[in-house]
Amino acid sequence: MKANLYSIGVDLGGTNLRIAAYTQNNGLLETILLPTRLAAGRDAVVTDMCHAIETLLTRYSASHSLAGIGVGTPGPLELPAGVLHNPPNLTGWDDFDLRAAIESRLNQPIVLESDANAAALAECMLGSGRTMKVDSLCMLTLGTGVGNGIILNGKVWDGATGMAGEAGHATIYPDGLACPCGSNGCLEMYASATSVVRAANQRIADGTAPALQGKTWTAHSLATAADQGNTDAKKIFIDAGHALGIGLAALVNTLNLPLYVVGGGLAQAWHLMKDTIFEELHHRSYVYRFTAPGSPIAMRNPSGATHVLPAELGPDAGLLGACILPFSEYGTLVEDRND
Amino acid sequence: MKANLYSIGVDLGGTNLRIAAYTQNNGLLETILLPTRLAAGRDAVVTDMCHAIETLLTRYSASHSLAGIGVGTPGPLELPAGVLHNPPNLTGWDDFDLRAAIESRLNQPIVLESDANAAALAECMLGSGRTMKVDSLCMLTLGTGVGNGIILNGKVWDGATGMAGEAGHATIYPDGLACPCGSNGCLEMYASATSVVRAANQRIADGTAPALQGKTWTAHSLATAADQGNTDAKKIFIDAGHALGIGLAALVNTLNLPLYVVGGGLAQAWHLMKDTIFEELHHRSYVYRFTAPGSPIAMRNPSGATHVLPAELGPDAGLLGACILPFSEYGTLVEDRND
Repeated sequence: MKANLYSIGVDLGGTNLRIAAYTQNNGLLETILLPTRLAAGRDAVVTDMCHAIETLLTRYSASHSLAGIGVGTPGPLELPAGVLHNPPNLTGWDDFDLRAAIESRLNQPIVLESDANAAALAECMLGSGRTMKVDSLCMLTLGTGVGNGIILNGKVWDGATGMAGEAGHATIYPDGLACPCGSNGCLEMYASATSVVRAANQRIADGTAPALQGKTWTAHSLATAADQGNTDAKKIFIDAGHALGIGLAALVNTLNLPLYVVGGGLAQAWHLMKDTIFEELHHRSYVYRFTAPGSPIAMRNPSGATHVLPAELGPDAGLLGACILPFSEYGTLVEDRND
Repeated sequence: MKANLYSIGVDLGGTNLRIAAYTQNNGLLETILLPTRLAAGRDAVVTDMCHAIETLLTRYSASHSLAGIGVGTPGPLELPAGVLHNPPNLTGWDDFDLRAAIESRLNQPIVLESDANAAALAECMLGSGRTMKVDSLCMLTLGTGVGNGIILNGKVWDGATGMAGEAGHATIYPDGLACPCGSNGCLEMYASATSVVRAANQRIADGTAPALQGKTWTAHSLATAADQGNTDAKKIFIDAGHALGIGLAALVNTLNLPLYVVGGGLAQAWHLMKDTIFEELHHRSYVYRFTAPGSPIAMRNPSGATHVLPAELGPDAGLLGACILPFSEYGTLVEDRND
């Protein structure tokens, strides 16, 4: 029976829409990739999504039993309602009851989560969490913004309204840069792919980064320049590492989880940020100092050690997370992983 | 049977040692108050504690069934081991295996927690959590330092090593005051009873608080002066409110709990800090703005509203928390409360 159990997962992005069939034994069986037709309106996007889901349901229902359908969406997402609230990556979807739209179209229930939470679940159950043999973690996803997901005992921590995991908007520098969220000095303003490019442009304009002048930078080209020894590019990642370290130290002190994971595109520059991240962790978190790998507590009780690592899963994390959401919901995820 | 079920709770403090018998129907049946004889050494303190526990066991065992023995202790406390690590309020107890010392003396298991976690559990199950009908909360205890406890679904969130709930050492101002924990700019340096007195003395020395000059201040007398219109005293609490608001906003964004509680001695100045606290929450937490009482989400789904309130329980919170720890451990606390 278990070998025949499959799920369908949806990764709804601002650019791409991916729908996959998945089994716990064989992973992704098949993935349908579609453009997210935002210009055609949200109903068209939901129709595209449901068509693809139905295609997979038809294809696999004869040979497999459906565990459920998981959907990951850009947030903010209100749960359990399933309503989007001013999602920055889905313009015009404010107050959209995504759950009702999908469920009435499919005529069956779905398991809905924000994309950052789904990615964190995948990283926990199929990525670094599996490697480290833990079932709780906190993941920061460094992309356009800084996403965050918290997994406790193998389940997404949704909070009271599905909006937990917004540590990307924790204040790092109280008088810092204005954030689109309305606050100042959010982690997201200092440690996203967007923020490193902004920092480079600002320093070029200020005349404080002579080695960066005369070029148009991306997060990727900045990292390459830093790798090639460009001092001004290196400084940008050192500053991002400081912000990440300050934010992570607060999370370690608050949650005392066994694993914190840094993912997303900017995590490819992990090696450029990690020294500063750990410097701040040692300075700002006595929980980290007590429990860091090599500490007496970690030596005596390895499962109590605090690990801070780059993510193992790449861009598929969100899709994989959506696929395993139904298994998590029915409580079989941790047991199955440990089979 | 349930009416006859009792527990014994211990609140181990740096000054006082309190041991109580408790039932869920009648609360504290009897409390034994002893001085904490730190000068006599930790074994003497454990002996005093165990004598008192045995006195209560003898007194209630004929008429009641023991649910368990709960002990709250100043941290940092490593769990499940039960070992103290450099506790600032129990000098000389570094690396002390408190669990083994008590359990071998009593010849039975105990449920051990840090005092801030025990207080948060009591506030959740018997205080503001009960009033607000929620079973998850985050409590900040503003005393000598800033303690913190997180309750999720009616249970203490211990983290991997019992050290969760140190949000008092989250960084608020990265270049701020040096904290005894080794970091800079911790919440504890700006929002504890100690910190408001330090701020007053610093401003007197700076000459920036003429209305405070010529007196020796306590947190209590500063609050009284502020209530009587002393502008410089008022400013001290406004600044503490800013720090608390910044810290709470990060916690709301990260955890999305239905309730955040501010307790401890300095919470008596709640009315002097609350405007600033809520100003920062509105500015820095979009999760708070989405879910604040009166928001559309909170109106539609009252159980999803985010409440930030002063604690209901006073100095007994820690003792009550120790008493209900055994019931929490056996998972009957939430069900019983909802009877």
